Amino acid sequence: MSTSIDITYEITPHHRGQQGQDIEKLLREIALEQTVEVPDGFFFDQPDINTRIVAIIKDIVPLDKAGGRYRCILSYNPEVTAYQLPQFLNVLFGNISFMDNVRVVGIDLSNDFLRAFNGPVYGIEGIRKVLGVYGRPLLCAVLKPMGLSAAALAQMASEFALGGADIIKDDHGLVDHPFCSYEGRVSLCQQAVVAANAKTGHNTLYFPNIVDSVEKIDGRIQFALRHGVSGVLIAPYLVGLDTVRYLASVYRIIIMAHPALTGAYFHDPDHGIRPSVLLGSVFRLMGADISIFPNAGGRFNFTPEECLSLSHSLRGSFSQLKAAFPAPAGGMKLDNLHEMASMYGADAVYTIGGSLLKDASDIRKSTEAFLEKITALFSHTQRQVSITQVVNQSSCDIHVIESAGGLFEDVFEHMPFCADFSWTGRPPRLYKDDDSLPFRHITRHELIGRYGEGTRFDVRYFQIEPGGYSSFERHVHIHVIICIRGEGILIIGDNRYALRPFDVAYVPPLKPHQLSNGSSAPFGFFCIVDHKRDKPFPA
Amino acid sequence: MSTSIDITYEITPHHRGQQGQDIEKLLREIALEQTVEVPDGFFFDQPDINTRIVAIIKDIVPLDKAGGRYRCILSYNPEVTAYQLPQFLNVLFGNISFMDNVRVVGIDLSNDFLRAFNGPVYGIEGIRKVLGVYGRPLLCAVLKPMGLSAAALAQMASEFALGGADIIKDDHGLVDHPFCSYEGRVSLCQQAVVAANAKTGHNTLYFPNIVDSVEKIDGRIQFALRHGVSGVLIAPYLVGLDTVRYLASVYRIIIMAHPALTGAYFHDPDHGIRPSVLLGSVFRLMGADISIFPNAGGRFNFTPEECLSLSHSLRGSFSQLKAAFPAPAGGMKLDNLHEMASMYGADAVYTIGGSLLKDASDIRKSTEAFLEKITALFSHTQRQVSITQVVNQSSCDIHVIESAGGLFEDVFEHMPFCADFSWTGRPPRLYKDDDSLPFRHITRHELIGRYGEGTRFDVRYFQIEPGGYSSFERHVHIHVIICIRGEGILIIGDNRYALRPFDVAYVPPLKPHQLSNGSSAPFGFFCIVDHKRDKPFPA
Repeated sequence: MSTSIDITYEITPHHRGQQGQDIEKLLREIALEQTVEVPDGFFFDQPDINTRIVAIIKDIVPLDKAGGRYRCILSYNPEVTAYQLPQFLNVLFGNISFMDNVRVVGIDLSNDFLRAFNGPVYGIEGIRKVLGVYGRPLLCAVLKPMGLSAAALAQMASEFALGGADIIKDDHGLVDHPFCSYEGRVSLCQQAVVAANAKTGHNTLYFPNIVDSVEKIDGRIQFALRHGVSGVLIAPYLVGLDTVRYLASVYRIIIMAHPALTGAYFHDPDHGIRPSVLLGSVFRLMGADISIFPNAGGRFNFTPEECLSLSHSLRGSFSQLKAAFPAPAGGMKLDNLHEMASMYGADAVYTIGGSLLKDASDIRKSTEAFLEKITALFSHTQRQVSITQVVNQSSCDIHVIESAGGLFEDVFEHMPFCADFSWTGRPPRLYKDDDSLPFRHITRHELIGRYGEGTRFDVRYFQIEPGGYSSFERHVHIHVIICIRGEGILIIGDNRYALRPFDVAYVPPLKPHQLSNGSSAPFGFFCIVDHKRDKPFPA
Repeated sequence: MSTSIDITYEITPHHRGQQGQDIEKLLREIALEQTVEVPDGFFFDQPDINTRIVAIIKDIVPLDKAGGRYRCILSYNPEVTAYQLPQFLNVLFGNISFMDNVRVVGIDLSNDFLRAFNGPVYGIEGIRKVLGVYGRPLLCAVLKPMGLSAAALAQMASEFALGGADIIKDDHGLVDHPFCSYEGRVSLCQQAVVAANAKTGHNTLYFPNIVDSVEKIDGRIQFALRHGVSGVLIAPYLVGLDTVRYLASVYRIIIMAHPALTGAYFHDPDHGIRPSVLLGSVFRLMGADISIFPNAGGRFNFTPEECLSLSHSLRGSFSQLKAAFPAPAGGMKLDNLHEMASMYGADAVYTIGGSLLKDASDIRKSTEAFLEKITALFSHTQRQVSITQVVNQSSCDIHVIESAGGLFEDVFEHMPFCADFSWTGRPPRLYKDDDSLPFRHITRHELIGRYGEGTRFDVRYFQIEPGGYSSFERHVHIHVIICIRGEGILIIGDNRYALRPFDVAYVPPLKPHQLSNGSSAPFGFFCIVDHKRDKPFPA
């Protein structure tokens, strides 16, 4: 790992019969173009600019004897990128995208630059943990075509999930259409997948496509989170790469990246950016947990070598950044899965559209057949993981969907208060169903919202005994807290509040927060939240 | 203007020695790929999808006798774009960016689609009004190189302004650098330009480059606006095109668009997107008031024909969208300005970097020389416009931005309880704004939901004095009531409950209900309701 940002180019000085240029002169032009954007001789009475700002020629290696092709490295001062993704893209290929004979084929990023990025939030390990699937490639099915109703897509999602798909993603062209709304599609598909999971015992994940305008995209993702979704599909070139980085860092959700609109960079082997750099390293830097690309042998034009190089960029060592899944798409059939297996190994997501849909009446069976084949091909490598080890998708959301209406007789008009801070008809519960986030000495009473009341909010009473605390966590949904018993501490971000009876507190979206009791008596409070809400994640 | 979105392609079936394909078959594949993404025969038992969603072949014209090149038109239903820019980009060139033999050469957009976009806020006329300059091209000087201090750049800006430049823009590589901060640069450069304007009587505009990460870009533009800046430079491909559209529509500022990273679309005449479409029509749709492109004869490779076609896309009729300035950059010298003049006419922005900087000690004189030449070349067309006629930048827009967030000043994280049953920052209000339904001796505190909290519920505290009562009413929305003070009566339909502190009550949808106080002390309770709710009517 260097302290500079080293970019490797392949340069063909004679491109399209142009007169051959001196390679050193050409490389110097690139070094100037991508930094100061003035030719030599402009302002270089300030020698500092030449030594600190302009990229330095590190290596020139001829790739043939005729001087037709060179591999060259320029070293950039990481400071020129300002440690932000948009300006990094500019340094990578901004103005030289207009030069016909330059291709970016490799990048080596400095540690201080990489530290400015989170990369994938889940990565391969995190996604496997959520799914409870190890030792084999994941099977990703695609909901399409555009034009189907939300109900038809949900029916398809159900079949995929019952057939054992690990991931079901929207086609990247499914947006909030006049003929099929985003909210309708996402709620029905997610519901269908949750219902199928209840039957299969699997934890199939549904990834809706959240491509939309800037004003709406946060709302799209929040809607998905409230419905228990834990990953999304997004095409970085449609919405901007930095928008994706931002969404990944704020919502800490699984990001599956689609390469729409990027093909022009890969069109000419003498020009552009190598797929392993753009869809591999750069998308991983941006935060992609899974990067989709056209599989060798599919209807587009990547070579097997390029697919492997791309996979390596996603999975190989890259400073502190987690490894991401390569997701080859296209051209996968039952009878070439063994080739896929030996080519990509276990850590890949097979993204399969057409092959599962050929026979609309038998989607479940096609999915089962693919899964069986994949499982058989990797049977020697699969660890057995019991379902209890699996970190599940927000269990309370699933609970809601399943019990909606079913417990209607538990709706009371009046729940008298009992002197011991309990309520008639509302027994105390565990604070959380799992212990993925630490907490201590805390109980929960669901007063309103979980018994079929039909409100858009839930009212709960929590009680923290002396020395206890809630999880230190954050989430998109808001808390309103009203203290009614004893005294406690509420931390919100950097703020710390003492709560006494009838104090009201508001925890804004995504702010890390925790409640604790440092007193010698119980501390009790109402906590009111949106009924549909996202799952907390560590602060 | 059609009711469909018509995209014109040039297709070369024999690209790179590939076996020739039937042009109709190829075009049908594009029509499927850009919409439903499944081949013929998948789901077309639903004929609606084929007729409503899949693009329709409108025209196929051979461009040579050998069948080597065709110009074809596909008609898309505007609904597939969902009337948003990211999905429009996807329909335009998302997946087919991976096809080697397709080039988008024209678009014809439907009125209903165009109505969803504002386009340029200022446009040519708006910018001329701000500048008070008519009848000749504008002169835009560029601040560079990266690595100069803010003070040195400001000194340069001053010279450009004193020399008469109409616009001074940051080089697009100038961001918030460790060695030259955005705020330092923008405040000094703007100050220098304002000071120069006071001397010259001109209204030279300074456009800072606002490229930065998503979290910071709003702050960058707001900082610029607070300093009196009325336009910015931004590279749409670095930050995302829809981010630019969003910024233009929110801040209503002059947008000068830079083409960094777009060159790969223009690299091959048989592939990609024609510059006149991407940097012309699409950037104008996005909201560019000025679109920079590599001038014919400069160091990059646009032909004069392409530059003219691009200029036409920016300036020609385009439904209700205002005309935008073409801004050729590169290769402009004093002795070819007459060629520029006859090529582009008066409505262009000459973007001049190197030629003004060659002699660092004489920037002002170089600028004056260019302006004199431009003025002389267009002397016959210039109207005289007094500076007092100029409509300046909207001052209220600045005002709005300064007070944005004002709504959120009232969101408190902590509202301590006061001993008299009130809360800090939440004064009591009338129970109801009108007396259409009777009530008596009752007050209301809005605690959560009416101050910008973003919850889906409101939390209120009501207090009924002895002898008082709420309206006897009903509504679809639900009440959750938690008594915290004294004792009262709740009637729900035929039921009657005594409420004492911490009793919880639930009023189901449409049940007539009323609260009252028959005791001799105040009766107080929280009432939680959906934020969006219906109006009560008499029970």
